[in-house]
Amino acid sequence: MHSIEWNDTHLSLLDQRKLPHQSDWIHLKTHYEVSQAIKDMVVRGAPAIAIAGSYGLALAIKNGEDRTQAAQTLFQARPTAVNLQWALERLSLVTDSEVLNEAKRIHQEDLALNQNIGSHGAPLLNGGILTICNTGSLATSGHGTALGMIRSAHQNGQDIHVYILETRPYLQGARLTAYECMEEDIPSTLITDGMAGALLKTGRVQAAVAGCDRVAMNGDTANKIGTYQLAQLCHLHQVPFYIAMPTTTLDRECSSGTEIPIEERPPQEVRSVQGNLIAPHNIPVWNPSFDVTPAHLISGWVTELGIWNLPFPSQTSTGQKD
Amino acid sequence: MHSIEWNDTHLSLLDQRKLPHQSDWIHLKTHYEVSQAIKDMVVRGAPAIAIAGSYGLALAIKNGEDRTQAAQTLFQARPTAVNLQWALERLSLVTDSEVLNEAKRIHQEDLALNQNIGSHGAPLLNGGILTICNTGSLATSGHGTALGMIRSAHQNGQDIHVYILETRPYLQGARLTAYECMEEDIPSTLITDGMAGALLKTGRVQAAVAGCDRVAMNGDTANKIGTYQLAQLCHLHQVPFYIAMPTTTLDRECSSGTEIPIEERPPQEVRSVQGNLIAPHNIPVWNPSFDVTPAHLISGWVTELGIWNLPFPSQTSTGQKD
Repeated sequence: MHSIEWNDTHLSLLDQRKLPHQSDWIHLKTHYEVSQAIKDMVVRGAPAIAIAGSYGLALAIKNGEDRTQAAQTLFQARPTAVNLQWALERLSLVTDSEVLNEAKRIHQEDLALNQNIGSHGAPLLNGGILTICNTGSLATSGHGTALGMIRSAHQNGQDIHVYILETRPYLQGARLTAYECMEEDIPSTLITDGMAGALLKTGRVQAAVAGCDRVAMNGDTANKIGTYQLAQLCHLHQVPFYIAMPTTTLDRECSSGTEIPIEERPPQEVRSVQGNLIAPHNIPVWNPSFDVTPAHLISGWVTELGIWNLPFPSQTSTGQKD
Repeated sequence: MHSIEWNDTHLSLLDQRKLPHQSDWIHLKTHYEVSQAIKDMVVRGAPAIAIAGSYGLALAIKNGEDRTQAAQTLFQARPTAVNLQWALERLSLVTDSEVLNEAKRIHQEDLALNQNIGSHGAPLLNGGILTICNTGSLATSGHGTALGMIRSAHQNGQDIHVYILETRPYLQGARLTAYECMEEDIPSTLITDGMAGALLKTGRVQAAVAGCDRVAMNGDTANKIGTYQLAQLCHLHQVPFYIAMPTTTLDRECSSGTEIPIEERPPQEVRSVQGNLIAPHNIPVWNPSFDVTPAHLISGWVTELGIWNLPFPSQTSTGQKD
């Protein structure tokens, strides 16, 4: 399962807004279209956004656009995830003629990263695993980060059962994670976001795993809205809470979570579900897309290089196979 | 605003499944229809269910049905809320010819109960108030319990702002509480259930209020799924968490929360939103409609007789105006 394809003349993205009901691919020929696709959440998930943005820069060069302006347009598409910034900075070091090849390398390396996260993380999982949002093949080049750990554990034959938080407002859990689990016969149960506490109280959950969009040097971790309260509830119920983190998601310029910009998205996402209004059309809404989980609530960061704890090591993989 | 009307020959219920988009009334002539309407959540909210069920028994008698069997049918419609049981037991003590009048008294008394809860509770509220589900005019005979406290505070001119948890799967917050707040110009903001923790962390919430479906003698309180984690998160952020409780919701036969039956509802409620599928059609689901909040997380129970703490007083109002 994958959601990003480079096709010589254009970038093809699986339209994740329509999953699991429809599998529509859309085809992009300019970096403007790529930027808009990122904003509109055709593609989402920090690693996947970085890959799409990298191909976006390659399209800009192909189209003879101003390279610096194109990078800025792509960078501004979504502010919270750091991976896109990392990818664009990496691309800034290569010549015009090398950008496409470097984008392809970023794409390929991400898969290796995820598989290594899966290998390191799978031994932490057993029994019931609670997860939020989608961090699987659809959020990355393939395999996934937090869902990659789960996928590896399942492939290893470990006895696991995934509890999927539906993850309103965008329902990445209900739509995407549930879809990936059903496709691969990973035993799973869907719950609403308000059920996490009650589920933890039953004792059916042995660990929780989440992805991340940006991690500060003190370990504070930005991820999908709802992650903070999930981590607090796990802590209260003495259930370990792990973050799956490609080392490219660590922001070495960021000392703590207070410095991480949190994107607020349109109120319509909360007032409606898949285009259908569920609330008064004019009710005021607060819609932060992410929150920050303080480091002390996190039991470990599962990276492609192994399981990290604080203080973070100084090395950062660029994603090479080890 | 109200959702229950007795019209001499039949019971009329505002179909709450269609709010806020449509205001359809349905008209019921048998206790079977009333029982089904309670099961199907045409009417919901512990006090409103008790009122509807009372009129349901009056319909059974009018139709010459077996009174004991009718009471059992109604009682089994939904197992968690105790108010329906209380109302049916109260009705069991009056003659056939008095059942309708007694049902009307239960209906009228509920309004007085709510207004007294509002008067006692309003002084506890100031600034940001977080609430879950719908506990307003639509969940009761009018005014409401937890939302009644908020409504009273607003009517008193207190400076409050309501944060409404949308309350999946049934979206009583987004559909019903948001509707009531908009109708009465109560300042309010809608959020998803995963945002409670992040909101509490901002310091914008000074108190949380919830209703209840059954309260045990040790103070353990069953309410809408999500209430338990809300109470835990309030406790963590040192925000007082109040339960609005008509004394009729106290179950003196129930010593602790472990004895409270928790209704599990159909998976389709989680897999879809207002009839539209949001997840793979066959994904397994856990859908408990309620959870139990342990007494130690509750800052006080706001009753029609005043604010209660443990141990609960032995008196129970039957709802007379005081």
